[in-house]
Amino acid sequence: MKIYGDSISGNCLKVKWVADSLGLSYSWIETSVLKSESRTAEFLALNPAGQVPAVILDDGRALAQSNAIILHLAEGSALIPADAYQRAKMLEWMFWEQYSHEPYIAVARFQVRFLGKPIADLEPRLVERGWGALQRMEDGLAASPFLAGPAVSLADVALVAYTREAGDGGFDLAAYPRIEAWIARVEAALDIA
Amino acid sequence: MKIYGDSISGNCLKVKWVADSLGLSYSWIETSVLKSESRTAEFLALNPAGQVPAVILDDGRALAQSNAIILHLAEGSALIPADAYQRAKMLEWMFWEQYSHEPYIAVARFQVRFLGKPIADLEPRLVERGWGALQRMEDGLAASPFLAGPAVSLADVALVAYTREAGDGGFDLAAYPRIEAWIARVEAALDIA
Repeated sequence: MKIYGDSISGNCLKVKWVADSLGLSYSWIETSVLKSESRTAEFLALNPAGQVPAVILDDGRALAQSNAIILHLAEGSALIPADAYQRAKMLEWMFWEQYSHEPYIAVARFQVRFLGKPIADLEPRLVERGWGALQRMEDGLAASPFLAGPAVSLADVALVAYTREAGDGGFDLAAYPRIEAWIARVEAALDIA
Repeated sequence: MKIYGDSISGNCLKVKWVADSLGLSYSWIETSVLKSESRTAEFLALNPAGQVPAVILDDGRALAQSNAIILHLAEGSALIPADAYQRAKMLEWMFWEQYSHEPYIAVARFQVRFLGKPIADLEPRLVERGWGALQRMEDGLAASPFLAGPAVSLADVALVAYTREAGDGGFDLAAYPRIEAWIARVEAALDIA
């Protein structure tokens, strides 16, 4: 498998972590978003959406969207709960991540850390929704040690990627003790600390 | 099953269409976003994210996120391809829908049709990305009659919901003959025309 990814992107690291966790062999092709390497004609032929990560599977076929890729790679593994309801909750968190977490937590981090925008200049709506997403996670983690139940799953992979970097965008996690403890648990389970 | 949904929301209609297509019995609890009925204490106890749709399954447990709900309801049915790669492509389109299509196509429609904003006043970035999403679909439909292969799947359910209403937000589909033919195919397959 070839993984086209940007090492500074949490979405791309999700794929690396799952591949490493499952012992899959792959080559990593560094693809810089800041250098527009995901917008070249060559890359667009691989993923017309112009987004990283994208992978070329061993049979030569391409696949994109971080959460779709990790669901495909992890099929049949312990990273996907055997219980149907826990599996559905895992998917609920993964879709929620892309709609209600990544557009705020990841975008704030990108603007501050990689584009140099002062935290005070972030769009207020983005900041407000970012805090809302973190509170939603803090509340969700009251019920179980991992997001979709008693064991680590792809929901944790998807959400730890940018949550562990939230401080870069001005979101101090000190007020969220459950999130901080959960990050440590997920990092230990995935061996990515 | 109880489905809490707003009849004007494509995300909610996805759940209705899949339940109807599979012959599942349910009661529909109309929950108006415009009247903030998804922000009451009662609703937030059901879905802390404050979003419709949400369902209460027959065992009393709650589930949210339209695409997670339909993946759960359709498990083992013909709406999910048996082939692993087609299944992965279905998921790729479903995650792409929530990240790169709904925030533009659905939001434009909502602002114009339900908030009364003139099309000319839509944010330029939203309009540009909406057109980009439609072009991506038009290109994707060159390869197969449905998004994830030869048969209708949840990818088509997820994407037809707001694509068929795109004109309400100023996105005229006349320039996209493959999308128009695909909408007719999906409506026929789901019996929602």
